[in-house]
Amino acid sequence: MRLETPGYSTLAQENQLKYSFSGSGVNVLSALSRFGHEAYLISALPDNALGEAAVANLRKLGLSTRHIMRSGQYVGMYFLEKGFGARASKVTYTDRLGSSFNTASFGDEQLAAAVAEVDVLHFCGITLAMNDQVRSHMLHLAREAKRQGRKIVFDCNYRPTLWGKDGYERAKSHYEQLLQLADVVMMNEKDAMLVLGMPTAALEREQQLKELLPAVAKQYDIQTIAGTHRRINGDNTHSLKGYIFSKERLIMGREHSFSVHDRVGAGDAYASGIIDGLLRGLPLEQVVEFAAAAARLAHTIQGDTPLSTREDIEKAVHNETGDVER
Amino acid sequence: MRLETPGYSTLAQENQLKYSFSGSGVNVLSALSRFGHEAYLISALPDNALGEAAVANLRKLGLSTRHIMRSGQYVGMYFLEKGFGARASKVTYTDRLGSSFNTASFGDEQLAAAVAEVDVLHFCGITLAMNDQVRSHMLHLAREAKRQGRKIVFDCNYRPTLWGKDGYERAKSHYEQLLQLADVVMMNEKDAMLVLGMPTAALEREQQLKELLPAVAKQYDIQTIAGTHRRINGDNTHSLKGYIFSKERLIMGREHSFSVHDRVGAGDAYASGIIDGLLRGLPLEQVVEFAAAAARLAHTIQGDTPLSTREDIEKAVHNETGDVER
Amino acid sequence: MRLETPGYSTLAQENQLKYSFSGSGVNVLSALSRFGHEAYLISALPDNALGEAAVANLRKLGLSTRHIMRSGQYVGMYFLEKGFGARASKVTYTDRLGSSFNTASFGDEQLAAAVAEVDVLHFCGITLAMNDQVRSHMLHLAREAKRQGRKIVFDCNYRPTLWGKDGYERAKSHYEQLLQLADVVMMNEKDAMLVLGMPTAALEREQQLKELLPAVAKQYDIQTIAGTHRRINGDNTHSLKGYIFSKERLIMGREHSFSVHDRVGAGDAYASGIIDGLLRGLPLEQVVEFAAAAARLAHTIQGDTPLSTREDIEKAVHNETGDVER
Amino acid sequence: MRLETPGYSTLAQENQLKYSFSGSGVNVLSALSRFGHEAYLISALPDNALGEAAVANLRKLGLSTRHIMRSGQYVGMYFLEKGFGARASKVTYTDRLGSSFNTASFGDEQLAAAVAEVDVLHFCGITLAMNDQVRSHMLHLAREAKRQGRKIVFDCNYRPTLWGKDGYERAKSHYEQLLQLADVVMMNEKDAMLVLGMPTAALEREQQLKELLPAVAKQYDIQTIAGTHRRINGDNTHSLKGYIFSKERLIMGREHSFSVHDRVGAGDAYASGIIDGLLRGLPLEQVVEFAAAAARLAHTIQGDTPLSTREDIEKAVHNETGDVER
Amino acid sequence: MRLETPGYSTLAQENQLKYSFSGSGVNVLSALSRFGHEAYLISALPDNALGEAAVANLRKLGLSTRHIMRSGQYVGMYFLEKGFGARASKVTYTDRLGSSFNTASFGDEQLAAAVAEVDVLHFCGITLAMNDQVRSHMLHLAREAKRQGRKIVFDCNYRPTLWGKDGYERAKSHYEQLLQLADVVMMNEKDAMLVLGMPTAALEREQQLKELLPAVAKQYDIQTIAGTHRRINGDNTHSLKGYIFSKERLIMGREHSFSVHDRVGAGDAYASGIIDGLLRGLPLEQVVEFAAAAARLAHTIQGDTPLSTREDIEKAVHNETGDVER
Amino acid sequence: MRLETPGYSTLAQENQLKYSFSGSGVNVLSALSRFGHEAYLISALPDNALGEAAVANLRKLGLSTRHIMRSGQYVGMYFLEKGFGARASKVTYTDRLGSSFNTASFGDEQLAAAVAEVDVLHFCGITLAMNDQVRSHMLHLAREAKRQGRKIVFDCNYRPTLWGKDGYERAKSHYEQLLQLADVVMMNEKDAMLVLGMPTAALEREQQLKELLPAVAKQYDIQTIAGTHRRINGDNTHSLKGYIFSKERLIMGREHSFSVHDRVGAGDAYASGIIDGLLRGLPLEQVVEFAAAAARLAHTIQGDTPLSTREDIEKAVHNETGDVER
Repeated sequence: MRLETPGYSTLAQENQLKYSFSGSGVNVLSALSRFGHEAYLISALPDNALGEAAVANLRKLGLSTRHIMRSGQYVGMYFLEKGFGARASKVTYTDRLGSSFNTASFGDEQLAAAVAEVDVLHFCGITLAMNDQVRSHMLHLAREAKRQGRKIVFDCNYRPTLWGKDGYERAKSHYEQLLQLADVVMMNEKDAMLVLGMPTAALEREQQLKELLPAVAKQYDIQTIAGTHRRINGDNTHSLKGYIFSKERLIMGREHSFSVHDRVGAGDAYASGIIDGLLRGLPLEQVVEFAAAAARLAHTIQGDTPLSTREDIEKAVHNETGDVER
Repeated sequence: MRLETPGYSTLAQENQLKYSFSGSGVNVLSALSRFGHEAYLISALPDNALGEAAVANLRKLGLSTRHIMRSGQYVGMYFLEKGFGARASKVTYTDRLGSSFNTASFGDEQLAAAVAEVDVLHFCGITLAMNDQVRSHMLHLAREAKRQGRKIVFDCNYRPTLWGKDGYERAKSHYEQLLQLADVVMMNEKDAMLVLGMPTAALEREQQLKELLPAVAKQYDIQTIAGTHRRINGDNTHSLKGYIFSKERLIMGREHSFSVHDRVGAGDAYASGIIDGLLRGLPLEQVVEFAAAAARLAHTIQGDTPLSTREDIEKAVHNETGDVER
Repeated sequence: MRLETPGYSTLAQENQLKYSFSGSGVNVLSALSRFGHEAYLISALPDNALGEAAVANLRKLGLSTRHIMRSGQYVGMYFLEKGFGARASKVTYTDRLGSSFNTASFGDEQLAAAVAEVDVLHFCGITLAMNDQVRSHMLHLAREAKRQGRKIVFDCNYRPTLWGKDGYERAKSHYEQLLQLADVVMMNEKDAMLVLGMPTAALEREQQLKELLPAVAKQYDIQTIAGTHRRINGDNTHSLKGYIFSKERLIMGREHSFSVHDRVGAGDAYASGIIDGLLRGLPLEQVVEFAAAAARLAHTIQGDTPLSTREDIEKAVHNETGDVER
Repeated sequence: MRLETPGYSTLAQENQLKYSFSGSGVNVLSALSRFGHEAYLISALPDNALGEAAVANLRKLGLSTRHIMRSGQYVGMYFLEKGFGARASKVTYTDRLGSSFNTASFGDEQLAAAVAEVDVLHFCGITLAMNDQVRSHMLHLAREAKRQGRKIVFDCNYRPTLWGKDGYERAKSHYEQLLQLADVVMMNEKDAMLVLGMPTAALEREQQLKELLPAVAKQYDIQTIAGTHRRINGDNTHSLKGYIFSKERLIMGREHSFSVHDRVGAGDAYASGIIDGLLRGLPLEQVVEFAAAAARLAHTIQGDTPLSTREDIEKAVHNETGDVER
Repeated sequence: MRLETPGYSTLAQENQLKYSFSGSGVNVLSALSRFGHEAYLISALPDNALGEAAVANLRKLGLSTRHIMRSGQYVGMYFLEKGFGARASKVTYTDRLGSSFNTASFGDEQLAAAVAEVDVLHFCGITLAMNDQVRSHMLHLAREAKRQGRKIVFDCNYRPTLWGKDGYERAKSHYEQLLQLADVVMMNEKDAMLVLGMPTAALEREQQLKELLPAVAKQYDIQTIAGTHRRINGDNTHSLKGYIFSKERLIMGREHSFSVHDRVGAGDAYASGIIDGLLRGLPLEQVVEFAAAAARLAHTIQGDTPLSTREDIEKAVHNETGDVER
Repeated sequence: MRLETPGYSTLAQENQLKYSFSGSGVNVLSALSRFGHEAYLISALPDNALGEAAVANLRKLGLSTRHIMRSGQYVGMYFLEKGFGARASKVTYTDRLGSSFNTASFGDEQLAAAVAEVDVLHFCGITLAMNDQVRSHMLHLAREAKRQGRKIVFDCNYRPTLWGKDGYERAKSHYEQLLQLADVVMMNEKDAMLVLGMPTAALEREQQLKELLPAVAKQYDIQTIAGTHRRINGDNTHSLKGYIFSKERLIMGREHSFSVHDRVGAGDAYASGIIDGLLRGLPLEQVVEFAAAAARLAHTIQGDTPLSTREDIEKAVHNETGDVER
């Protein structure tokens, strides 16, 4: 649950909030649902007014809520104070220790049944940081997916504040377990260096990518690795460039600069673009531009959750800005 | 009636709208009323709560509502979802077929009486696209204006979606009828080429203008033709340049680049500036800069309707931005 | 689509609206979905931003949108100005003639497939007033339902403004066609007298019911007829009493008086309570009290659409008001 | 200018306000304009953004703003915190000493020209409390009206806080000057006793009226005197009863009890009902019920300004509450 | 932190919330601060944006925040969906286990220093339900207060959901420890029967009070016990009656009925009235009516926190409702 | 009190406002309070609902309200219409003549006691423009501060509209009195030339500074003079450069360009940075960059009042923009 102050005000200045329901998985699934895929969220929500609101809003986003357990008492939340220019946006989390998701106990058949319904499963590094029970569910689910021959997508999404002190060390083995099972991985050079501890002599980001991605793909037997490089410019615009590594080839997309309305969720939009592009069997050059355009558009949309259709994104691949559509 | 989602959200994301009452004619008249002219709208609105709200808001904008008939049942509406950067603004129309305006039947004396009260009549190409009855009223009104020696302004405002398939062909004769009666026409090179089917070998916009405007003026016996050229830049700014053709001279104004708050209604602001400048007998060079500054300011104003005074516009002719006025 | 002014203001006073998506069918289905039933809406919506918003919100309400065609261009809307005390609430409709629903052309197999998925079909007298095409679809659907052995619920919902002049006469045969196919009918003594033209010497409402319902049930071979009697009291409260006729027995429920927050949709809540109660095979005395409590609660809920669970309603059957639940 | 906190919150609790432009004269004129009369406000407003907003909103209410001078710098304002039950609504005024209205200097021909355009002039005791210049303008205007044979309505509206210490004594001569010129006076027994110092032995309100109104009418040669008696009941409802005295007859209207949405401006609605009823030459019994119903409806309308049409009021004369109009 | 949906909507219907910072202690202290007392809150808040907002808002309410530790990470929150009539208001709590308050570790000198600054300490049964550490801090503080000769007020505020299964048994010893130290206790007959397990043969609430309060006062050596009896009526009004027991006398206040705007925090307003009345040495009859009027007014104020001054309350002791104060 | 229209709308377009309580002194004190200083405002506010709201909000900002007198009746206000691009923001003041601040009569001991509690006093040229009584209080306070050995900061803040015709001449002696007492002065070359009438042959701003500041410092015996140079660029960004003169050295800071969210209060943020930097004894180069960063951040914050902590500002000294903090 995202709770956001109006405009660019802080929590101390205001007495009103807008709320919505999102999360990395929700965002990827919502985007895929816009592309015409059926999207199922495996999660848990409390059987109270907040859970009810969450379920209703997930349905609204186009997700099937059939695999959402109603158990536990709490919903994970974060407060967002949107920044402006030199004042960064600020996220404040509420206690997630006892959330329905973190305390839910999924049965084996339940998970197997969920796997049976889908072609692709998406896992996120943020949930990997939660607790042992969640990690055990994730691993079980990934193995079951492998067993049933489903594709596995894993987005590293390493968040330092969630792993805390000595986080890289504590995270490594968990990341490795999922990497070994994954077909498609969202990752950058830092993940390789810091989480996986892989060495490189290169100093420049792109050079590091070129050295590390083949090594990662080889070591963990990963078919495809993709991600983005972002630069924040002095004039408040961002510059973004996608990349994808597959079959020994690293393809760097074109860099675009643009103004940002809502930063959160852009990575998930990129992931959704990669997944959809691969599922459609597009050439990798097109996949990476489609995904990057999806990410760019996600910066123009209020809230965490990407809402663009394939048509919207195709248009954005070619043009930066448009006049009123009427 | 314009119904607009908050901020940059879409209709599917929100549950609130802001509404206002506008339209090409309303915008031009409201702007002229700010310049000190008396402004009368000839239109029709239903005798219900929506019509009441529309009439009250037109009065608020400074229009005389004396020539607004209260008949029919419906008001034409559009929904506006404001875009951001690469995500274009989107307009969704409601059914206008049965609107009070489209079904109203104005009496001949009624129209003659309205003409008798004014110096200048403004016609808009959007209403020309409505239906035969509306077109017949427009033509009747224009002929009556001619008969009584009033000035006629005609803004081409060709909207492809309203004319539909084979639109240019279907529109041509209707446009020609009004062009032959008009003294001042708002038009660009595309109108000449596509609607009127006039040929040009030039490839560049400005060159096309130079060739076509004299030809149009001659063929339809038009005293003054004016318009703007707009470019949308990569950094979300727009660039605008006004032009005016009169007495064999084509004057191209200076180009200005600026950020855009609300795109809709800027063309109407330009038209109002041309009309006011001509009525005041300003030199054409000043007319075109005044009108272009009016258009630029209209981009900075919330809603379709220009609200700037002559003083505001004169200031904007010379300066792009100002500090707080206090 | 319902567009509502804030608080008790009129359209002429405000510049903001809240919107939601409802309708008699939506309300009944949403209520049944809260009771645990699967609910499918058969309708049509345009493939534009408004249609997208509508579909998303219907999903949010818990409806399956699988049988919603995306065709046509427009959505039916109404504006609501909430009244206070002696100032009645006011509804202003937009043009529905060209709405997606009124222009949609459903295929026979499409309708047959929809019928095949459900146990009960709900028809509403409001849609019966639309046009011949809609009526023909309704009749086709009802016959198909009969053929496949489904239960048919028909809510008379006669709206004078929709049928216009000589409405009762024009409506009669259409109503009769559906009554002959229906198993459960929502109706009151006025429907019998005015639409069906059935005579009664009784002067008092309840006495009229007692005479007419058995006659209607017999003539059209209807298993169950139900409805409510409402009184509006001087102190702004409403009094409501449910009734149900079945197997020769007319059961009058208890009358309750209560304050009203949102009047619209209460009849649909009553219908949903009747349907749920009958499906669960409750004794008729309980069915009528359950439905009346559902209707009472619907008056306390913002918007047209009932949101109460069975537990909420059971509580309301027994208590009028409660302290904070914490 | 009225600035109002949301809901029932106080200024210290909130950071948002709604604003509108009203005043006793504005309210009476707006109501009369709804009844089909032309309504002119004689006042002054500054030539700045606030004055612009005020003028636009007065136009929106249907007032002609032709006789509003644009001079001075300030607009009188008040803040309204709506109370609930035992917590009374609270009005906080801003400084009015230097307002445009209080500092404006109207020319004699200006006032004479304004008088020439109207049939009836309405004066209010609130403005009488402002300062000597305002009072001198009022007196001049009233005498000019008399000279030109116009009807004069004077609403006593004595406000203790505005007259301050020894207010009754200071006010008396000013009230007497206007009473001697007035044809119709809005007044109650307290005005007669406290402002005019007229004696009565009666202890009960209605008895005091019966004794004092004939005496006032005789002494100041007033044709018609009207007003209301209000009781505030324990259950938050108000009870209101109108009365009118004319040609030796005191007619007491029926008492009605009702819930209150917005208390301010109800007296002005009553005055507008009296004026309209008298202008139409209705029997006094009807005048008083029409005016009382206008006042009742004004309690149901957001803001100070009555917005009901004659049809709305006629309906309210007969029914207290109605179901949704659709 | 209280997060509240707009109007009477549910979390699933809306996307906006209003928030404020309250709590039983905050409410009592804020009320006392309005009465002219200095008020210190002993609590803990995180050193992040939420904590900053909380501290700023507590200052706004008039509390000294000097004794608020900045430690831990989370703030306790609850969501409020305001009910209407038969639909009860609903409170949904977030996880409080890890809140700053529940994890804070106060030093002994810190608490002793806080005690040294005040005359009276207020303890609340809600915090008693938190955890052992909190309870230990409370006991330490109460003993230190006793040692330094301060008055101790204890409000039982037993909340079944917080104590859970076998709550009464688990709570008893903790309540007894504080009762033995308290000078003034807020309590009703149920607390005595259920928490303290004291027997009574009486069946009627008031009779139970008469038997149990003297017994409680004697057993735990309490000087004064006070509380309220509330009835919720069929017409949505509440009836409230205060009582106080001291020096062998049980004084029952007058019962008042009234409409309710915001139910939460009324008990705290009553407690603040008792404390202020006792500190001022008013006769007990006046204390109980002052406190009951404070509680009544708290029902008319938006939010949990009472904001009335002594003058407001004195007025409310005598009158139920008032006209606009202007 | 600042009353602000939503978004970029004008007062004539809207019916809602946001309000807050600010002022040059409030802004400086609030910023210093964020830096850990205790901050006391010496002012006057009415004892009514507006005064109550003001006091509550000043407490919320972290100011001690102990030295705020409750006297008089009115609060000074201004309306803000935020501009966009070429349309400048517009401030409209209400009447301040009779405000509590302008009519308050502070006692000598009262002021002496206030001085005794603080290390530094901040005076503002805006209040110097009010009236003789205010100026006399300021002078008394400054002399008392000198007597007690406190530091005096004086911000020239010359506002032409407040001093009116012949303002520079009328202001000069009042400015000189304060300059002679001040230790730190906020001032630019225009103040020296226009208010103090000091001559310079230089034509360029920075050159003028270099000539005039040493002269001013010498003539009035001022230890430190600081200020900023602002340029408004064509693309709506502003460029700002701080400077400080002390001990014969003029240090020009680096120039930064940035987008502006809220222009008002940036000068006060700069002053607060200078004061804090000097109090901490930072090198002047660091003082000026710290103050300039504080000013830049103030442009990114909603409202007049700076809210940044030292940590926020230190970060902004080094980076222009940052990604989400999470």
